Amino acid sequence: MTVLEKIEVKPMSVEKTATSIRFAPVILAGGSGTRFWPRSRRARAKQVLALEGEHTMIQQTLERLQSLASADDVWVITNCWLRDVIAEQLPKVPKGQVICEPCARNTAPACALAAFLLERTEPETVLGVFPSDQVVKDVARFAEVIGAGVKLAAAGENIVVLGVKPTRPETGYGYVEQGATVDAVDGVSVTRVKRFREKPDPATAERFLAAGNFAWNGGIFLWSVKTLAAAIREHVPDMAPILETIAAAFGTPEFERVFEEEYPKCENISVDYAILERRSAKGETRSNIYCLPADFGWTDLGSWASLHEHLGDGDGDNVMDGATTGLFAIQSSGNYVFAPGKTVALLGVDGLVVVETPDALLITTRERSQDVSKLVRAIHESGREDLI
Amino acid sequence: MTVLEKIEVKPMSVEKTATSIRFAPVILAGGSGTRFWPRSRRARAKQVLALEGEHTMIQQTLERLQSLASADDVWVITNCWLRDVIAEQLPKVPKGQVICEPCARNTAPACALAAFLLERTEPETVLGVFPSDQVVKDVARFAEVIGAGVKLAAAGENIVVLGVKPTRPETGYGYVEQGATVDAVDGVSVTRVKRFREKPDPATAERFLAAGNFAWNGGIFLWSVKTLAAAIREHVPDMAPILETIAAAFGTPEFERVFEEEYPKCENISVDYAILERRSAKGETRSNIYCLPADFGWTDLGSWASLHEHLGDGDGDNVMDGATTGLFAIQSSGNYVFAPGKTVALLGVDGLVVVETPDALLITTRERSQDVSKLVRAIHESGREDLI
Repeated sequence: MTVLEKIEVKPMSVEKTATSIRFAPVILAGGSGTRFWPRSRRARAKQVLALEGEHTMIQQTLERLQSLASADDVWVITNCWLRDVIAEQLPKVPKGQVICEPCARNTAPACALAAFLLERTEPETVLGVFPSDQVVKDVARFAEVIGAGVKLAAAGENIVVLGVKPTRPETGYGYVEQGATVDAVDGVSVTRVKRFREKPDPATAERFLAAGNFAWNGGIFLWSVKTLAAAIREHVPDMAPILETIAAAFGTPEFERVFEEEYPKCENISVDYAILERRSAKGETRSNIYCLPADFGWTDLGSWASLHEHLGDGDGDNVMDGATTGLFAIQSSGNYVFAPGKTVALLGVDGLVVVETPDALLITTRERSQDVSKLVRAIHESGREDLI
Repeated sequence: MTVLEKIEVKPMSVEKTATSIRFAPVILAGGSGTRFWPRSRRARAKQVLALEGEHTMIQQTLERLQSLASADDVWVITNCWLRDVIAEQLPKVPKGQVICEPCARNTAPACALAAFLLERTEPETVLGVFPSDQVVKDVARFAEVIGAGVKLAAAGENIVVLGVKPTRPETGYGYVEQGATVDAVDGVSVTRVKRFREKPDPATAERFLAAGNFAWNGGIFLWSVKTLAAAIREHVPDMAPILETIAAAFGTPEFERVFEEEYPKCENISVDYAILERRSAKGETRSNIYCLPADFGWTDLGSWASLHEHLGDGDGDNVMDGATTGLFAIQSSGNYVFAPGKTVALLGVDGLVVVETPDALLITTRERSQDVSKLVRAIHESGREDLI
């Protein structure tokens, strides 16, 4: 029995439609990533940095999609500061599909724009929304899971999200409350989604972790163009006509002007709040939201502390980054140091984050590294735009 | 009544001899200053760095002596790594008077060498021994005190030391136990010295501080050439013939060879231990050791912590050094950061020392900065001579 039969959406099987599905990944790359200051800057945000490995995060994002989609079908939503560097880093993505928002309006308008752009010509295409700043260890498994998700999204008015098995009571992520396991597609298990939960307080996060059926919202969503367009019209009705106007101007000489005039009118809201939470309120069986496991070594590099965790060999490891020429550590543990080309000497210090660039030096702790954005705000407010 | 009459050394007054005294400062500049790594290196030791102010520490040492002695009369005892940079920094000191020890043998042999070099031609000259890594705030007062000391030293077999009024129970300095105040020379009070005390343990240091008649040994000594030469023959008899041999070769083509062969035979011992402690054992009235107050804003820059204290505006001050272009600090206090040309951002860190050079980055705490030499030893042992 296929998932489709079980959930009774349409009288066709996932397997039968698989070969004819068109898949268009939408890479969201508009974030400023201020928590990686001083390495990340407005024109050099986290996603265009090689924080781990040789390639930048957005290059890795495209690479892990290459078995699933042609670069010709990829869209990138970013901002004017990053346009050039992204075009340079992703030369195979058509320049016309690198869309620069005139202002940041969170993920809902960005996703909706993509849907309305494709709605007239290819409503059956499956859109996949991918953050550009995530790390995936097992790319083969990633392709399996996303491939299954594309099939599931293509098979009706389904919305597919990815859930990461939580390893700690994290308060920085949204959670997906999972319901019944309904089936498996290509060996990937599928659960219904009961509810989306906002970033919880610590006690609630502990409860979610203990309950066992809560997953971190991995920020990856799959749905057909027509499903997403319909969801926007239903759940964010004010936003729909704005984006329809912008989409209608796409490809004309008027586009930039219309985009600049209309886009700022959109509500500043995430996909999670605007669509998923509202949709999930219909109830587990009526919302058609399904969750697939992000069991491919998913990491969200959200701060210097998470980079330490990702690169390090345990909590007490001293992580030297940026091809430093040597490390001498005496009675020091758990530090993260980025100091290109330098020998680093640590004496009697623990849990620090030290990041050096040609014009700036950051010194904080792993514990406080979530608050680096506060520093960036202070620098911005002081008028030191050269450092932003 | 003059000091001299009072202490009954010679039937002549300090005032009468003042005009005819010849004064030869001996600047001790052989230290490696590893505690200021990574700024200080073997060929760029603390004394040739501009740690505070525009001029280097050895330049400041010479400058504050200029009202008391001609640069022609100055001797510098250093090592082969620093010879060139010192010759460059002190162009007025005759090159032949920059003596490079073939190996480090602490302060007693260095001072004794100077005495024996001058003994034959000018036994009455007053030698002043000056460390090259001290900071003096009030240079006019320094000249007054040293001038008075020179007169006192010229007036007989007197040894003059400088005592710094202690402000904390420091365990890193030697102490001078002062006896009776005997008089004043040119408005500078003179006390007898009861005893020299080695670096004390914390409890003893507390007792010294409470007692009120203990001063830190400022490392500055004044005595006539013949007094010093006699003291060496009396208190370090094995060392005298070695240095006499070296002095006899001075100015001949044999000098370097003799110096290299003989000097290593000298005992590795400080002036304090070799002469002053032994001499003071004769008793307060018979040792002829006098103490003048180093009340001219004396600071010994012994570590990054002491540089923080010297440059900072109190314990909680964040000190940015090296012409940094800006500082942003959130919930951070008492840090010392040397980061030339960089903007420094601190978030949630206290009492740290961060020092950046083109090839190395040191991260420690003010509390542990005394132990930076341990790091340097570890680096040396690892074979990374490029960093030493």
